[in-house]
Amino acid sequence: MIKIIHYPLSVIHFLSLFMSKTQPARGMRDFLPADVRKREYVIGIIKEVYESYGFEPLETPAVENLETLTGKYGEEGSQLIFKILKRGEKLGESLNEKDLADLALRYDLTVPLARVVANYKNDLPKFFKRYQIQPVWRADRPARGRFREFYQCDVDAIGSSSMVVEAELCAAVSEILRRLGFDDFIIRVNHRAILYAMLEAIKIEEEKQTDALVALDKLDKIGEEGVLKEFENRGIAKDAASKLLNLFINLKNSDNSKILSALSDFIGQNEAGRHGIGQVSQILESAGLESLKIDASLARGLSYYTGAIFEVNVPDLAGSIASGGRYDGLIGMFSKEEIPASGFSLGLERILLIMEERGMFPPELETNSADVLVTIWNEESIIESLKLANDLRQKGLRVSVFPEADKLGKQFKYASQINVPFVCVLGESELAENKVTLKNMETGEQETIEREKVAARVKIHKQNSMSKS
Amino acid sequence: MIKIIHYPLSVIHFLSLFMSKTQPARGMRDFLPADVRKREYVIGIIKEVYESYGFEPLETPAVENLETLTGKYGEEGSQLIFKILKRGEKLGESLNEKDLADLALRYDLTVPLARVVANYKNDLPKFFKRYQIQPVWRADRPARGRFREFYQCDVDAIGSSSMVVEAELCAAVSEILRRLGFDDFIIRVNHRAILYAMLEAIKIEEEKQTDALVALDKLDKIGEEGVLKEFENRGIAKDAASKLLNLFINLKNSDNSKILSALSDFIGQNEAGRHGIGQVSQILESAGLESLKIDASLARGLSYYTGAIFEVNVPDLAGSIASGGRYDGLIGMFSKEEIPASGFSLGLERILLIMEERGMFPPELETNSADVLVTIWNEESIIESLKLANDLRQKGLRVSVFPEADKLGKQFKYASQINVPFVCVLGESELAENKVTLKNMETGEQETIEREKVAARVKIHKQNSMSKS
Repeated sequence: MIKIIHYPLSVIHFLSLFMSKTQPARGMRDFLPADVRKREYVIGIIKEVYESYGFEPLETPAVENLETLTGKYGEEGSQLIFKILKRGEKLGESLNEKDLADLALRYDLTVPLARVVANYKNDLPKFFKRYQIQPVWRADRPARGRFREFYQCDVDAIGSSSMVVEAELCAAVSEILRRLGFDDFIIRVNHRAILYAMLEAIKIEEEKQTDALVALDKLDKIGEEGVLKEFENRGIAKDAASKLLNLFINLKNSDNSKILSALSDFIGQNEAGRHGIGQVSQILESAGLESLKIDASLARGLSYYTGAIFEVNVPDLAGSIASGGRYDGLIGMFSKEEIPASGFSLGLERILLIMEERGMFPPELETNSADVLVTIWNEESIIESLKLANDLRQKGLRVSVFPEADKLGKQFKYASQINVPFVCVLGESELAENKVTLKNMETGEQETIEREKVAARVKIHKQNSMSKS
Repeated sequence: MIKIIHYPLSVIHFLSLFMSKTQPARGMRDFLPADVRKREYVIGIIKEVYESYGFEPLETPAVENLETLTGKYGEEGSQLIFKILKRGEKLGESLNEKDLADLALRYDLTVPLARVVANYKNDLPKFFKRYQIQPVWRADRPARGRFREFYQCDVDAIGSSSMVVEAELCAAVSEILRRLGFDDFIIRVNHRAILYAMLEAIKIEEEKQTDALVALDKLDKIGEEGVLKEFENRGIAKDAASKLLNLFINLKNSDNSKILSALSDFIGQNEAGRHGIGQVSQILESAGLESLKIDASLARGLSYYTGAIFEVNVPDLAGSIASGGRYDGLIGMFSKEEIPASGFSLGLERILLIMEERGMFPPELETNSADVLVTIWNEESIIESLKLANDLRQKGLRVSVFPEADKLGKQFKYASQINVPFVCVLGESELAENKVTLKNMETGEQETIEREKVAARVKIHKQNSMSKS
């Protein structure tokens, strides 16, 4: 029977005050061991694949000078930057934000990359291929899947305008997702120049093209009717919008070559557009990936993209799990030169979310804190237990020791709590015979064997259970 | 001839303003690929060893509620906390720090651990053995080896009062240092109860004992004369201090058993002191480490230690590279219960500094961004080059592709820049014969071989050069 206690409101208020003190800050998360293991498993695969493509790791500080971030993320983004209060005597007497804060938390990994490229120009190779997997912070309203601290996994190639870059980026991202166990993702590709050429083909004036792209970018969310309404609201002729949407409808489920030729017909002689089509063809041909599909309706909101753009989707998520594109103007923010650049960003939290929902993690991540728990029989046998633990560690096992001489029952209970598959008992008779009683926690079986055989026994079990999974 | 340009001051001022924009914030650092590799190498060994001892990873957010940190680090520490400005409407009209900031950057890993233990009490095992390797931030004045963002590598065992915990912690830290290549470190051990018993033995009143410990803690820095003076300034009888210092001088270079019996004699029947001596003996015996030495003068400034205390030193560094101890009261900060706890913290930046100075990093960390660079002969051969790159990756190599069809000379120059040991050339004749010309960048030798043999050739070289180092 559940007993419901009616606390007076003041007590509840007091309790909630007390409780709040042990929770992480709003929108931030603690990661307990099982969480960390899953995150590190995914990050490990991302790193390994990027390294195999010759990308190198970069890390930048969590804290940047506020001026480094100011003016880089638009007005909306700017309000989401966490600003750090000036210290002591530097804190003036004005309530103006500029006078209160001089530092800020990293908002993304692209601006720090641009700063680094400008700052270490002479130390970096002609083509700088870097990946960066670090948290960023945004003072956004927390929601399901939206946090105030979250990881970005960025990969960028700086210094080349060649489509080989895009082909390699798509191949690397595809390899990561495949290795994580995804087999139903699609990498949608489009090109800014194709988008603009289509808008010109339907006679949308230059000053309304950005508006049109913003509306188009919402197609997934608001549907065709919604886009038509958006076009209308922005004063774009309805029949122009219909022409475009009809094209998209006709191209749905077509194969890439059919789409390419239809787009070619649609945009006619528009030179930039034809160049865009050429680049997309090159990417498709060089990457040779079945998952790569042209989607002429893909617009990507970010205004800094200048060439090919990408979005990676899986059926069971409305948003994308990765996105990217070419942004030849952005890196120049911190230096006078224009430096070509292209990159992808993987959404770690979204990937983890889907993997969790689909049960895609190897089962060993969910469980074992160690391979074996060594128990302690009594105060006199502590040293022998610690020696056994060290022997097993030298043989490559992860070994925890129950820290106290306590009842065996309690030690076994702890073993279940931390989910170890095996427990070693070194009692008086075992010590006398130089043996160990090894208990399989899953089956309950136990056997008394020579000390030297323990490690091999546990390892065989470990290999078997990993190959089963 | 070097031409010296005399800029007017205003230009220099302008240039310096411009330059500052690309640098990281004061006291913060960017880590370029070679730096990241070294840091990850050290962190990887730390993790592996802690895991082998059954410790599990924990991660907490960089940002904590300000109230979580307030009052935990003393007045001096409190001033070094980076506070985060309230957002938008929450920002009131007062210049009081309390009204300006509600969040703060993590200052250490111990307070977040205490918060986590209180918050997830029911999800954590009876003994929670966790390691945590994350950056912390302190608004300290930057100096050589002192940064405003730096990593702490903490390992703590929560829930047991047994000295098995300390023995395992010392063994794990020792194993880490050994695996990193340190063979001249000493783990100094002492005990709070022994310290207090010594102070009682020389008749220092209870209210002056903390003062005396603070003075004693400076012995390494200010020497015996300095400590005598400090004692005098704090009104502690000079002959008492001399007695203590004489004891230390007599014990210098003695072995542990001699020190234990001398300490036993010195403190007489003091019960807590005898208990401390018993615990230290247990740790020495259980850990069985040659590097573990009693140092009766070790005091450790932090007031929260309650039992055994540790400091790890190497000859070529004035400060310690690791330190720790038992702090049975601290975890209770966030819950009503007292929960026993003991832990170590490794100083990552100091370990890296010494390893750099001593040249202890494996040479492969210093160099290669990849194992092979695949060149591109011309536009028509791009797909074949990318295929070769993918074949080699499937065989386990890290492969970079020169992203453009360019003069071979430029491609080789880039290969030197990124330090790859091998370059693959797929020219017209190679393509016709299904072969590859493989150039060894170190020796300059090149040979034209079957495609399938390339990976094996590079791997053999890689194994040889790693076993040489």
